[in-house]
Order: sequence, then C-alpha cells, then structure tokens
Amino acid sequence: MYKCSLQSMTEKIQAFSKFGDTGRGGVTRYALSAEDIQARKEFTKRMEAIGAIIEVDDIANMYATLSGSNPEAKRIVMGSHTDSVKNGGNYDGILGVISAMEVLETVAAQKIPHKHPLTAMIWTNEEGSLYPPAMMASGIVCWDKLPATVKEKFKYDDMMRSKSRLNPSETFGEALERSGYQGDRTYRLDPERYKCMFEIHIEQGPILEDADKDIGVVRCVLGMFNYRFRFRGQAVHAGTFPMTKRKDALFAASQVICYLHEEIDKLGHPELVYTTGEIVCHPCIHTCVPDYVDFSIDVRHESAEVLEKVLSIVKECAKKDWAGCRCEVEKMWNRDTVYWDPELVGYVKKAAEESGVSHQMIHSGAGHDAQFVAYMMPSTMIFVQSKDGLSHCEQEYSSPEHCTSAATVLLNAVLKADKA
Amino acid sequence: MYKCSLQSMTEKIQAFSKFGDTGRGGVTRYALSAEDIQARKEFTKRMEAIGAIIEVDDIANMYATLSGSNPEAKRIVMGSHTDSVKNGGNYDGILGVISAMEVLETVAAQKIPHKHPLTAMIWTNEEGSLYPPAMMASGIVCWDKLPATVKEKFKYDDMMRSKSRLNPSETFGEALERSGYQGDRTYRLDPERYKCMFEIHIEQGPILEDADKDIGVVRCVLGMFNYRFRFRGQAVHAGTFPMTKRKDALFAASQVICYLHEEIDKLGHPELVYTTGEIVCHPCIHTCVPDYVDFSIDVRHESAEVLEKVLSIVKECAKKDWAGCRCEVEKMWNRDTVYWDPELVGYVKKAAEESGVSHQMIHSGAGHDAQFVAYMMPSTMIFVQSKDGLSHCEQEYSSPEHCTSAATVLLNAVLKADKA
Repeated sequence: MYKCSLQSMTEKIQAFSKFGDTGRGGVTRYALSAEDIQARKEFTKRMEAIGAIIEVDDIANMYATLSGSNPEAKRIVMGSHTDSVKNGGNYDGILGVISAMEVLETVAAQKIPHKHPLTAMIWTNEEGSLYPPAMMASGIVCWDKLPATVKEKFKYDDMMRSKSRLNPSETFGEALERSGYQGDRTYRLDPERYKCMFEIHIEQGPILEDADKDIGVVRCVLGMFNYRFRFRGQAVHAGTFPMTKRKDALFAASQVICYLHEEIDKLGHPELVYTTGEIVCHPCIHTCVPDYVDFSIDVRHESAEVLEKVLSIVKECAKKDWAGCRCEVEKMWNRDTVYWDPELVGYVKKAAEESGVSHQMIHSGAGHDAQFVAYMMPSTMIFVQSKDGLSHCEQEYSSPEHCTSAATVLLNAVLKADKA
Repeated sequence: MYKCSLQSMTEKIQAFSKFGDTGRGGVTRYALSAEDIQARKEFTKRMEAIGAIIEVDDIANMYATLSGSNPEAKRIVMGSHTDSVKNGGNYDGILGVISAMEVLETVAAQKIPHKHPLTAMIWTNEEGSLYPPAMMASGIVCWDKLPATVKEKFKYDDMMRSKSRLNPSETFGEALERSGYQGDRTYRLDPERYKCMFEIHIEQGPILEDADKDIGVVRCVLGMFNYRFRFRGQAVHAGTFPMTKRKDALFAASQVICYLHEEIDKLGHPELVYTTGEIVCHPCIHTCVPDYVDFSIDVRHESAEVLEKVLSIVKECAKKDWAGCRCEVEKMWNRDTVYWDPELVGYVKKAAEESGVSHQMIHSGAGHDAQFVAYMMPSTMIFVQSKDGLSHCEQEYSSPEHCTSAATVLLNAVLKADKA
C-alpha cells in the first residue's frame, strides 16, 4: 500500500488557510474573489511543479492532469471546491482539493505506475455564498443528465444572471469574466474523457467522532425535500385587540413547529433529520400581532417511503387553521437519494482496510458536487472525521492525521480504479 | 347642548386625507415630511381664518389658540398628531387634530361664550415611523415630570440624533431645521399656561363596535411591560447532525411561545393582552439549525398585580433549558397604568349622556401623547369606534357620524372644563 505524507498534508492545509484568513482560525473565501484566485494560483503553481497540465473550463472549474501510461485511457478525477461560506473553516471543500493534489504529488514523487491520467479538480462556487445557488458549477456541467426537478434550479442563463449578495450590480457571469478564469467549454468534465470521480470531504456531523473512526466510506447522499409553511393572520395592535379575536401568525407557526416535532418523532426513525431553519415574520414589530409568518422545513432520509410519511404530516398541517390563521404548504424542491457507484465504494472500503485506516459505512446528509457528477459517471465520496461535527464556522476542524489517512485511502482507491 | 357639524367634519376628514394619499384609501405621512407640512399649512390656514393665533414650539408642535373672555385664564388644549405610519389610515392621529379644529370652528361660528382660551394642537412625530421612538415630542415636552424609567427613552440629545429609517444620513434634529417648523421653546405646552388636555383618538380595537357604542369614555392607559426572550443553541448542518444532539433555538422559542399562551391563559384575565410580535433568527437559512433566536413579549393590563403574575411566568421560563438551548429574559421597558383625571373623565361622560351619544367606559391599550401630558396636568381621552378594530393600515375606518359625535362630546366636555 502507498501512503500519503502527514507533513506534506499539514503544510498544504496551512498554506491554503492563508487565502482569506479571518484571523480567528477560519477563512472567508467567496468563489472568484481575490482570495479564491490566490488559492487557484497556488493550485496551479504546485500542480505545474509536478508536471500536471492545467485546463480551465467556461465555468472556471480547474483540472490539473498527470498523464498515465495509456494515452487512450479516460481520466480519473478527484476534487472538491476552494470557496467557503462567510467565516467558514479550513476544511470544507478545500480538503478535497488538497487531498487530490496530495495524491498527484505522491504519484509523481514515488513514480507510482498508473494507466489512466489522474486529474485533481477545483469546482467553482460550490457554496453559492455570494452567487446562489450552492453547487452551481456542477449543476451547470452535469445539467444534461440531471433529473428534471433539479434541472429547473440550474439553468445556464439564470446562473449567469445570479447577483452577488454583496454587490447586486455584479452578476456571476460578470464575475467569471472579471476573474480571468473563464476558460473553454470543451474542457468541462464529461464522461467521454473521464472514467469516474472521487471526492473527499469533511463529515460535517458527529457520527465518525462518536464512533471513533478516522474516515467514513460514504454509501449515498440522502434524499430530501424542502417545503415552505405559510401562515396568514391579521395584523392588529398589541394593546387594543382582545386575545380571543386575534389571528396570530407567529403563534400559529410556533404551534406547527411543536406539532411537527411531536408527530415526526413518533415515526421513530433515528436517522431521519428535519430542520426548520429559516423564518420570516411580518410586520415583525413588538407592538403588532404578526399577520404573516413563513418558515422552511428541510427533511432528509435515505428511504423514499420514510420521506413520504413525513410529507403526509406536513400536508396534514395545511388542512386546518392554527391560532385562527390559514396554513399553506408549498414544495420548494426535492431530490432522490443518490447512491454512489458500488464498485468505487468497494475500492474505498478495501483501500481503508488494507491501509489500516479505521472506518465505517456512512451516508451523506449534505449535498456535494459529486452527487451531480454521479448522474454522468461513476462517483463516490470519502468523509473525514469532523471535530464536534461542526462546519461552516471557524471552529471547523479535522486533524492532520485524519486528513492524511483519508488521502492515503483515496490514493489506493484511485489505483484500484486505475487497474479495473 | 352644542353640536358639531357632520358636514364640516366629513369635509375636513376628506381634505386631510389628500396629504400623503397612497391612492389606496390610506396615507403615508411621516413626521416633518412634505406631506406632513401640507397638513400643517392647512391647519394654519383654517385656524387663522377663524382668528386663532398660531404658535410653534422648538419640537415643531403647533398650537392654534382662540382667546377667551378671561385673558388671565389658562388655556384648555385639545389635539393629537398629523403624522402616520407607512400606508396608514385617515384617522389615527389626524382625527384628534380635526376634532380640535372642529371644536374651535364651532365655538367661533356659534360665538359660544367661554372664559378660557381654547387651543387646538398638533403633536410632532407621535408614530416615530421615520424617526424613532414613538411619542417623541410629548416625551420631550413632558420630560421633567416623566417617571425615571420613561425619561431614559426620551433624552433630548438622543432624540435630536435619531436617524431617519429611510435616509440614515439625516437626523430628527436636521429634519426639524429643514422643515421650517422649529419654533420657540417658550411655546411648549406647560402647566403654567395650560389648564388641561383632551385627546380624541380612534379606538384601534373592536370593543366599541362589538358593543355598538359610538364612543368610549377612556378611564386609563394600561400598564405594560416589554421583555425580550433570547435562546442560544448550536448552528449545525441540517443534513448531517442527528436530531438527538441538536440545540435548536427556533424549536426552543416555539416551545416557549406555546408555553406562554398555555400558562398565561390559565390566569383567566379576559382583559389581559400579550403579544410576541417581533422575532429574530440566526443564521436563518434553511440548511442550518438556528443557533440564536430572540423574540419580544408585550404584556398589558390595568392591574399591576396581574402584570406581576405574568412576569413570574416569563421569568420562570428562563430557569430551564428548552430544546437544549439556554433561555434568558431581559426587561426592555415597562410603564405603570396611567389614570385619566377623574373630573375630566366625568365631563366627557356627562357630555356624552347629555348629547345622546352612545358610549361606554373603556381603557386604552395603546400609548398616546396625552398619557405623558397626564404627568404634567389633568388630561383625558375620548375614543371613536373603529371598524373591525383595524388601525395602522389603509383599511382603518371610523364613520363620519361617529367622528362627529366624538367632536360634539369633546366640545361640550371642554365647555364644562371651562366653567369649572
């Protein structure tokens, strides 16, 4: 078994943590920002140093390729994204890029024989922090093969018109042009030239830490649905309107949030997760009973049948009034569970076993670029233990040892795919 | 008994509804805006036409005074405000000014004998819609006599620095200067020159309509407290974090809102009103469990003892965790019940009886300028039936008949005060 280097991984994690450093242990590195471009330049410099050829497609996705012994063979690609959320951590996304670089550097340094060209890749704008939506570039590149419900969200022209949240006068299309990283469409990831994809990512949850495992062999990305609850009441004065005549939309929403917890928990599926994360209240002043409240519900589980049961509870809520308010529910989007390619999952598991890296099977509750790629070509993911399960924050942390173990497993899994 | 004129009241309501007309049946007439200045010019023109002397104080409060038979006697003042909320109605505030004008016009036209000078008044910026806080000008003018807890909110320098919500580069002090309505401090309402104050206002609630009464004889303004609930949980990813390990601040807040309704309702005080009108959620995105939520609670009742019972329930909430989140409560402000002067209340009641205007005793749940004046001199209010109890919206409505009945009661009550 080949091994990646703890020293080299640690050095790269530190080097990339400088690009967008908040000074508090994390980074803000929006897609196509000056900080993101620093990271892209570092990637280019390091990959050119080992003889990789750099290609950039029209969405600024970057591909660094080491040739293999068979010039006809399709490429094997590894990668993730360099952009972060505001005040994010040093691991989400960038660790997948660093690990891919580490694999290529190890292959080059140790002259490890391989048939297929090997590509380390950067996906543009996975977070969508500045230019929504998240997973924008993989949505565009894999668009032809995506399910109809997902296609709707990633239409090319809409993406180019996506406005910066910081500067609404700049669109994503303009940022692409301005960045100097708008390359050629012919370089886009595509199943004609690429054989399969691997993505390393931090777990972003506490499961591996609780089980004391270095890495997770990911089986699937959970299916999910996102609905919106809306409540319409009546805005009246806080001091002058008797309680019995009120139609309080915030009280209605609170009742429904409590009801959802009660009813969904009764289903008894410990792996089911549901979140009411976003709430809007109108007019939202302390002297006025709210006449309108809406909130989001995000529900995730592997089984379509379980999701269907939760959806019944959600829809049931809209059949009655709450605190005198009408309740409506509306589907925002949903996606089916995406299963990773069983052969690639097998390579990862075998590589972990052979390398002596502690691991367990796991699912992904979060979305990742690889899941759109899975509609185009065999794909899979490797998760790295996250401290306290935290992510999208400056406290985000995975130990250099766990990160290096993951890179080692990636390297050996890729070599298995190379031989297949 | 003297009577006010339905025709004249109707004409004035229509005339003033043009200043800031939204075209949808309501007005937006922010304090010291061009629209407010139109209303002030109309007031001046009409009051000068009947021989009233106009004075303007340093907060742009306006006083139109008809002299009485005794030049030594203190003035009796009637009034309210000309400013509105955004997309407000044609009655809140302005009706109190129109009624005061109607009383002066009736006295002048019918040459009704009176000893005391009679003053129709405009309070500046009662709504605080553009320059918070609400009741700003009465807060400044009555400041010396206000309770310490209220004083804190209306410091002169802070008021002058209050920034426009539409144009944060302009302060209230600058708007005053710009308006041309910054007069002389010596004209401020003050107990040395004024005997007592009457304010007509719409009820802003459904009680008079439900009871089929034209007007309400107001006894008091309810005591109240405003507290803030704060919940601190943990922001984790909606897809990756098991339910049992979450600390969901929005779920915690929802549980507490439901708990408050349950426990406060058990107290069994039908006149108690409480409102959770404002809520803040962080980070408020659909893929993240909220780590911070706060909401306001506004509680009003005449009895300090009842308010104390509710406060115990509020404080009890902070003694435990909710959905794994710490709960804190913090007092924002409170005020004691303000009782109107019993003699003035008696004049209003007697005037209503003698004029054959249907009426009932009522309390005010909302705050009004007259309640600050009550700390300086005898004051009282008259409420007019509000259609559906609606206010602060374009649907706000009180019939011309009810408005005229209220003006008639005001006229006769003022004449009783004049004789006292």
